[in-house]
Amino acid sequence: MSESLQELSDRLLRFAQERDWEQFHSPKNLSMALAGEVGELLEHFQWLSENQCQNLDADKKEAVALEMADIFIYLVRLAERLDINLMDAAWQKIAINEKRYPAEQVKGDARRAEEYS
Amino acid sequence: MSESLQELSDRLLRFAQERDWEQFHSPKNLSMALAGEVGELLEHFQWLSENQCQNLDADKKEAVALEMADIFIYLVRLAERLDINLMDAAWQKIAINEKRYPAEQVKGDARRAEEYS
Amino acid sequence: MSESLQELSDRLLRFAQERDWEQFHSPKNLSMALAGEVGELLEHFQWLSENQCQNLDADKKEAVALEMADIFIYLVRLAERLDINLMDAAWQKIAINEKRYPAEQVKGDARRAEEYS
Amino acid sequence: MSESLQELSDRLLRFAQERDWEQFHSPKNLSMALAGEVGELLEHFQWLSENQCQNLDADKKEAVALEMADIFIYLVRLAERLDINLMDAAWQKIAINEKRYPAEQVKGDARRAEEYS
Repeated sequence: MSESLQELSDRLLRFAQERDWEQFHSPKNLSMALAGEVGELLEHFQWLSENQCQNLDADKKEAVALEMADIFIYLVRLAERLDINLMDAAWQKIAINEKRYPAEQVKGDARRAEEYS
Repeated sequence: MSESLQELSDRLLRFAQERDWEQFHSPKNLSMALAGEVGELLEHFQWLSENQCQNLDADKKEAVALEMADIFIYLVRLAERLDINLMDAAWQKIAINEKRYPAEQVKGDARRAEEYS
Repeated sequence: MSESLQELSDRLLRFAQERDWEQFHSPKNLSMALAGEVGELLEHFQWLSENQCQNLDADKKEAVALEMADIFIYLVRLAERLDINLMDAAWQKIAINEKRYPAEQVKGDARRAEEYS
Repeated sequence: MSESLQELSDRLLRFAQERDWEQFHSPKNLSMALAGEVGELLEHFQWLSENQCQNLDADKKEAVALEMADIFIYLVRLAERLDINLMDAAWQKIAINEKRYPAEQVKGDARRAEEYS
């Protein structure tokens, strides 16, 4: 994992240990907490038009950044608990997606993967 | 942003550009895609016991890692579109949480923040 | 509960009992299954424009209807497990919302509740 | 649709009309609002043990009931906007599930559908 991602993960582990919260941080529970934060992120965008969501004012952007931080934090915690290297997994997934969605074939088309034959 | 997170973000932007997919990647749409991937993550854990979710076999762990990669990828894409530094936001949130949940006060207690008076 | 909602709930309970699946249907697990299905619903809409999402073709509409059925099914199962009357709860919530969002005050404005002072 | 579900749907449509909120209630936006409420439901259960989630105290149960009401409300609104009969869709899905998961084959086993061959 990148040095700084490892540093963040270590800090989050220590945060949980200092509060005796590791007992709650099972992979299952962390996946739920992650989903809860994503729900809060959606609430920021749900009534915005395409145009509005691309032009957030400073307060809204700050609030969105902190929701994204929550998501990132739980994702990094979950990776630590499962001993998964997030950065490696992302690059592995990009390699898979490169094959699954050849640029020349899917250009300008965002249909779901399974809809391609 | 950490060098490697920046590198990942740049690669993902290029991936979208090569497919002319930037038109679909509004913050609103990306937040939905992120939530869709989190739903897939939950499906892996929903029927598992506490014990089972902490002892995934290799195939399951691989599948979970790739779902987490999808979540990470959309989160990084969203950050790029909103010009948010994910790593900075995470450390900022940790500082907030340090004040919000003093270790000595919340030790062993995971009640929701708003339930503290 | 309305007669037909009760009938549906009874049928779903029987479905679970016949498969010995009640052991998996704790409120926590059902809330995750519900969220997983909502993730699948989002995937249908995530790349659609406002205009497209209001004009689904027959196949897409059928697929969306079945995702909504899954959500409804898990919601009804969860209500049964918690002994909650969904219909009563909905009408109770409408009464709360009537006070929280007076028509004359929020007309044409969908800002989040907490943003009103 | 069952009479009472229709009555609820009509009331919710009127609620939106009185506030000029129909403009925000596209299927896409409603699916996001639904997901946001499901996120709030998850937050109630995320740190609870299996035992705790089956024995909610009265306050918690009331809060959970109101979150479920929000989910139900958005689901009914979405069905109205897409002209989908929720009750019919649920029974249709039960018929599909009956074939997909024959009781004698899946008894006591909640593995994901796609894992069956």
